[in-house]
Amino acid sequence: MESLRVLPGVGPKTAQRMAMHLLERDRDGGRRLAAVLDQALEEVGYCRRCRTLTEEEICSICSSGRRDDSLLCVVESPADQLAIEEAGGYRGRYFVLHGHLSPLDGIGPEDIGLEQLEARVAEGGVVEVILATNPTVEGEATAHYIAAQLTERYGVSLSRLAYGMPMGGELEYVDGGTLSRAFNGRLPFRGD
Amino acid sequence: MESLRVLPGVGPKTAQRMAMHLLERDRDGGRRLAAVLDQALEEVGYCRRCRTLTEEEICSICSSGRRDDSLLCVVESPADQLAIEEAGGYRGRYFVLHGHLSPLDGIGPEDIGLEQLEARVAEGGVVEVILATNPTVEGEATAHYIAAQLTERYGVSLSRLAYGMPMGGELEYVDGGTLSRAFNGRLPFRGD
Repeated sequence: MESLRVLPGVGPKTAQRMAMHLLERDRDGGRRLAAVLDQALEEVGYCRRCRTLTEEEICSICSSGRRDDSLLCVVESPADQLAIEEAGGYRGRYFVLHGHLSPLDGIGPEDIGLEQLEARVAEGGVVEVILATNPTVEGEATAHYIAAQLTERYGVSLSRLAYGMPMGGELEYVDGGTLSRAFNGRLPFRGD
Repeated sequence: MESLRVLPGVGPKTAQRMAMHLLERDRDGGRRLAAVLDQALEEVGYCRRCRTLTEEEICSICSSGRRDDSLLCVVESPADQLAIEEAGGYRGRYFVLHGHLSPLDGIGPEDIGLEQLEARVAEGGVVEVILATNPTVEGEATAHYIAAQLTERYGVSLSRLAYGMPMGGELEYVDGGTLSRAFNGRLPFRGD
């Protein structure tokens, strides 16, 4: 039970329920889970190119010949990368920070691989860096830091995800900051 | 109790609690509520110019000399107008539809005041119409209808609120449609 509590969102009660279930009802499932965990922890490492999680040296997106080398999307986590892939439409490459700048927690540029990112851009070939860090205070600060680091020296263009109304949202229930941004960022109406 | 159930979000249990509370603990409050309700229902009508709720013939925003006549923001409800006012920053005028087109429910252009809107634009002076209907299917359809109605004849420019990431949101938890829109609508990064 103690060990199950390393899982996020699992407290003492849930851990007990899980342990009892595995021991009383599904010992085979438990054994499979243990084996898969072992294997995953052994084999899943970081892509040497984009730092995402992968079982290979170089992940499938980095090694694909069908992605656009001129676009590089910087995200905070592999989960963010997955979300963008699932949303579809993006055909460029990625770079995963595994976090954001957070001086108070002692997380500086070297901890989120910014040297490696700079080296990647210095290689050439990248035309646009899409700063897809989260629209939170830390994500914004990280985007600003990267922008300052890259623009002066490498002349790549930098872009940021659009802020605005979430799809299907209602004006009445959206926070003031988002509404204000959506208003200021309004775009010519196109009939598409 | 029956009567209290006209309030949105009030079911039988809540109605009973409210009724008991007013009768047993706060008869004065109940009397004040009845009086204020009576007065509000008597006195609050629609602004003749923008159709929002007001106690005057013409609401305070329409009659203010400090708003910009060249901007007209079209919203679905007085609550949306309030949200935009509270977010701050917008200094133009409004037009309130009181709903959206919904042919299945028998709500057509005349029910949401589109003739009056057209007349308002025909007066001249409006340079940009901001279509701030909700980013829902019905809101979009209504925006398209209005756009078609106004562009051809009056040469006003039309704009739509920006779609994208809500402030403070996290990529990982945002729906695919919003993420996809935020990606496609990405903007050059500015250090502000």
